[in-house]
Amino acid sequence: MLIVMDSTASPEMVKRVCDEIERLGLTAHSMPGAQRTAIGVTGNKARLDSNRILTMEGVGDIIHVTKPYKLVSREFFPENSVIDVDGVKVGGREFVIMAGPCSVESLEQTMIIAEHVAKAGCKILRGGAFKPRTSPYSFQGLGEDGLKILAQARDKFGLKIVTEAVDTDTIGLVAQYTDIVQIGARNMQNYSLLRKAGRVGKPILLKRGMSATLEEFLMAAEYIMAEGNRDVILCERGVRTFADHTRNTLDLSAIPFVKRMSHLPIISDPSHGTGKKDKVIPLSRASVAVGADGLQIEVHHKPEEALSDGAQAITPDGLMQLMKEVRALATVMDRDVP
Amino acid sequence: MLIVMDSTASPEMVKRVCDEIERLGLTAHSMPGAQRTAIGVTGNKARLDSNRILTMEGVGDIIHVTKPYKLVSREFFPENSVIDVDGVKVGGREFVIMAGPCSVESLEQTMIIAEHVAKAGCKILRGGAFKPRTSPYSFQGLGEDGLKILAQARDKFGLKIVTEAVDTDTIGLVAQYTDIVQIGARNMQNYSLLRKAGRVGKPILLKRGMSATLEEFLMAAEYIMAEGNRDVILCERGVRTFADHTRNTLDLSAIPFVKRMSHLPIISDPSHGTGKKDKVIPLSRASVAVGADGLQIEVHHKPEEALSDGAQAITPDGLMQLMKEVRALATVMDRDVP
Amino acid sequence: MLIVMDSTASPEMVKRVCDEIERLGLTAHSMPGAQRTAIGVTGNKARLDSNRILTMEGVGDIIHVTKPYKLVSREFFPENSVIDVDGVKVGGREFVIMAGPCSVESLEQTMIIAEHVAKAGCKILRGGAFKPRTSPYSFQGLGEDGLKILAQARDKFGLKIVTEAVDTDTIGLVAQYTDIVQIGARNMQNYSLLRKAGRVGKPILLKRGMSATLEEFLMAAEYIMAEGNRDVILCERGVRTFADHTRNTLDLSAIPFVKRMSHLPIISDPSHGTGKKDKVIPLSRASVAVGADGLQIEVHHKPEEALSDGAQAITPDGLMQLMKEVRALATVMDRDVP
Amino acid sequence: MLIVMDSTASPEMVKRVCDEIERLGLTAHSMPGAQRTAIGVTGNKARLDSNRILTMEGVGDIIHVTKPYKLVSREFFPENSVIDVDGVKVGGREFVIMAGPCSVESLEQTMIIAEHVAKAGCKILRGGAFKPRTSPYSFQGLGEDGLKILAQARDKFGLKIVTEAVDTDTIGLVAQYTDIVQIGARNMQNYSLLRKAGRVGKPILLKRGMSATLEEFLMAAEYIMAEGNRDVILCERGVRTFADHTRNTLDLSAIPFVKRMSHLPIISDPSHGTGKKDKVIPLSRASVAVGADGLQIEVHHKPEEALSDGAQAITPDGLMQLMKEVRALATVMDRDVP
Repeated sequence: MLIVMDSTASPEMVKRVCDEIERLGLTAHSMPGAQRTAIGVTGNKARLDSNRILTMEGVGDIIHVTKPYKLVSREFFPENSVIDVDGVKVGGREFVIMAGPCSVESLEQTMIIAEHVAKAGCKILRGGAFKPRTSPYSFQGLGEDGLKILAQARDKFGLKIVTEAVDTDTIGLVAQYTDIVQIGARNMQNYSLLRKAGRVGKPILLKRGMSATLEEFLMAAEYIMAEGNRDVILCERGVRTFADHTRNTLDLSAIPFVKRMSHLPIISDPSHGTGKKDKVIPLSRASVAVGADGLQIEVHHKPEEALSDGAQAITPDGLMQLMKEVRALATVMDRDVP
Repeated sequence: MLIVMDSTASPEMVKRVCDEIERLGLTAHSMPGAQRTAIGVTGNKARLDSNRILTMEGVGDIIHVTKPYKLVSREFFPENSVIDVDGVKVGGREFVIMAGPCSVESLEQTMIIAEHVAKAGCKILRGGAFKPRTSPYSFQGLGEDGLKILAQARDKFGLKIVTEAVDTDTIGLVAQYTDIVQIGARNMQNYSLLRKAGRVGKPILLKRGMSATLEEFLMAAEYIMAEGNRDVILCERGVRTFADHTRNTLDLSAIPFVKRMSHLPIISDPSHGTGKKDKVIPLSRASVAVGADGLQIEVHHKPEEALSDGAQAITPDGLMQLMKEVRALATVMDRDVP
Repeated sequence: MLIVMDSTASPEMVKRVCDEIERLGLTAHSMPGAQRTAIGVTGNKARLDSNRILTMEGVGDIIHVTKPYKLVSREFFPENSVIDVDGVKVGGREFVIMAGPCSVESLEQTMIIAEHVAKAGCKILRGGAFKPRTSPYSFQGLGEDGLKILAQARDKFGLKIVTEAVDTDTIGLVAQYTDIVQIGARNMQNYSLLRKAGRVGKPILLKRGMSATLEEFLMAAEYIMAEGNRDVILCERGVRTFADHTRNTLDLSAIPFVKRMSHLPIISDPSHGTGKKDKVIPLSRASVAVGADGLQIEVHHKPEEALSDGAQAITPDGLMQLMKEVRALATVMDRDVP
Repeated sequence: MLIVMDSTASPEMVKRVCDEIERLGLTAHSMPGAQRTAIGVTGNKARLDSNRILTMEGVGDIIHVTKPYKLVSREFFPENSVIDVDGVKVGGREFVIMAGPCSVESLEQTMIIAEHVAKAGCKILRGGAFKPRTSPYSFQGLGEDGLKILAQARDKFGLKIVTEAVDTDTIGLVAQYTDIVQIGARNMQNYSLLRKAGRVGKPILLKRGMSATLEEFLMAAEYIMAEGNRDVILCERGVRTFADHTRNTLDLSAIPFVKRMSHLPIISDPSHGTGKKDKVIPLSRASVAVGADGLQIEVHHKPEEALSDGAQAITPDGLMQLMKEVRALATVMDRDVP
């Protein structure tokens, strides 16, 4: 930590800040400069709460050096974490594709799509049973019935499933049915839910919030890991910017950044990341090439009848095309796609 | 709703879209243009799910006209809603200031600050007992003990209290103690929490999410109102932008916009909106002048020892100065400040 | 400047960095910490170019402490600069309102509006003769004819005028006619134009770029001042964010920030800052209250026939109302409005 | 164009709007709805200036349907434009890489880097002779001397060159030396410069502004093309967002979007797009995969001594590695890399 004194700060003010730092059991390094004095602080194990200092007379600014994450950081676990989803490994050599409808709408719809998903070579079926919707009057998902349908599809087609939990009341129920519990972008800082996700005993897919910095994103994963669940998969799904040609701006630089800072796997969601079905394949290709560990893709056999997000769902034929293109690029990236 | 056909769409494609619209019980108005055909749709009570149409052959784009909100909209209730907080009226002539510490840290700290808050003329005490923090290792609040402390301060100084509820498990508990239940920015789209907030029988202070559009903000309020709770107070607290001189960018244009679209009262939070104590008074003045119904302000008698957000807390002396400046401007705006 | 070494950096790497710093004539302060070493650098007059250091082995990050501005900074000139526009003082006690049409469209239009502007008590007439337009097919302004019309309006109504210069070829011409030369948001980092603005011998009104940080904004002013022109008036006119209820997001916190960092006056432009005529008056009030030195307002007697930006222009009646409301608030702020 | 009337608009107001539309030589299609009336407008060749309508009584909003671009649009030229840069084709099968230093610093530095660039297989050398810098006290480039150095490097190594023009005074000079004239992000809406770029007789590389929508980006290209220069290459170089882990956020979705809307080629600049040298290769790979027509890359043999932007420059070894990885992916994308 570095404390920057005002140019008008007196030597007494500097001394008082140094004394306070020493009082806290830390070491102060005073560095008088031409225009102002800076004070380096060392010895802090945790990130020092800077309020006390920041409000002392003569203090201009405080600059933090130590990063706040622990369990999620690559300094902590230098090797890549590989999450074992009941036999499907996420974060290893395999490039993992999770595909399926935005919402589970009916047994028939889910079975049709799941069959296409399995046939295309994907190993994980996605589908929402509890849906967070902007309007209280929109379709909110089938709830437990939806979970049962997903479980049937899993059993029939030998897929794993991933589905979202939206609150602490139902995350336990969701975890009973699903192989991966998804925490959506809107809940990335719902800390009660994150804490409970740390205790459900299933891998968690954590999506980046719409305006979350990567530090906040990793700290949200830290909440889950701090409760004892080390099986966290991250997902970049686009952030909110002024750009209006896509629904969100897919921030692919997040992927090499997370890879460097953390040992956790990270996948990409170009369906939400663009909101446009004709952009899903190009951005899927880019996600492979940038180094993602997998994809989450929305697929619907009749996008025109989808109860949610039909504009960003590709068709089963589109999925076949996507798999073909992704497979070719994955080979170059030394990753396997079934 | 307006459907814009591709420039290459055939008359048959146009006809098929019109037929589909009529089949849905709506009226299609075909408008052939020089370059392309547009089809107007009328007769829809609710906002038509546009997926079915958007994926039909020849359809280029769909433009929505009808706004999605109902209960929050001024068209629904033309008069300003005035929320009665156990005798303190929010949204009426009085300009209401809620002040207090970021976190309830101890009985002593809260009593000292509450006394200053009451003396300054504020009628509502703010203070967090359950704190949403970016890091799992930061102080998370005193929980129910904090609520009890707030209640003591209320009784002693004749104040009302506002405090945040962070999950569905504890919102009932929070509602037992507080006069206003706050839903924070990070939970603005935690729909399970919003729904429960609609049934707790206390007024709700709903803060705008960090990257929420005003449509999403009003729809979050709609969730609360749809459950039967009409006592919703909105709060602009800054949004996330590229600008780095403040912690958030306080979007004061939101206030006249909300006033026009909705009957609900809206206050401003310049403490979070700027994150800098020396910007709180200027932005408080601006909030009065732009037409807000009140303020929420963080105050601490020893900001240097605050367990959270000390950098944005003003001192009791600062609060006295703020009240003086706000009072002078409120008079010009024809609002009362005690 | 603070250099943060990687946690894996060897003592030799630290030494090599310190040696390099000393070689540059500066002083290195090594601060070994529990996790990593930081090196403070003092003695640099100018901001050290950090590339050389940043690429040395073992260096993790560099943090700048010294701010890069000189002439614009309040440390340089502690007193507020008051810009004398041929007798009208900007930055002093008077709250100065510049009003007029977006574009000079004709002699008649300009004379009608100028009369209203003068009658309302404004002392400065705005109007564009050279217009930067998104489309090459839109009206681009009357050029020198427009300047002549502005000059006629000035003479007739005893106003000063402000009008935009869009390139180095025509800024000299603009400066011959106008009292204040405006540099628009799109040209805030057109450094050739800024440099020439530093030599035209007229006060400059510099608008903040749509995505400019305040540091970049002040550095753009530094370009003008570095050429010898100390008469710079800054203008906050809104920045680009995800928020879609206004054309731009007016960042009023910029005003107290600039006031603290710089001695230069700063005004607010709620017409461009919101893009909505019904938001101009509320945000004008907020601008007075936050501490701005003045306003720039678009006015048109027939907004429905304006050749540009009619949606954000208020009518002459609106201007009278605005002046009335601004006057009342300015009195409280201890500012004069004629 | 669609005009949405207020819900309170009277039939007379609707009629008046329809009459005005007809008076303008267009056709009005009135569509009375349950809540409000919408009026479709057809027959407009150009985009109707909507001010006149927007300010009429009872009008709530106007929605534009027709896109404003002409010469840049794919509807105008359905085939991909291939720009011939003195024998090097941009926008065809070849994936074109432009590499070199941020700034031309000396003959020696440029020759060393150019040799590496040629050896790596790149055909175009980049390098700045006129530099737009945030601070007036930073290195501003060697000017014409820099252009001469670039020309020498071209002749010696058989490369083409691309260098930036920053103003109308010097663009003619730049065009005499260079093969491609670059217009930088800060000048994307410097319309005088764009117009002159339309008349210099050399291909133009136009970079997206830091907060430009794609519509504004394409309209900037339209300015150049409207003057008769059809040889425009677009470049995505990152936009400004709240995300702080990269200098800018590289918006790769822009590339398939531009490809769909326009016939012009578009390349990607991951050096500016990330500002971090260790992110350049991953984002270069992603750029190939998303469908870009080429790259612009900053290379320096001694990044630690670079006079500008050393933090984002890769070394010659890095360039060799980049070429190897790009080549492998380009093959899959059916593009050639030398």
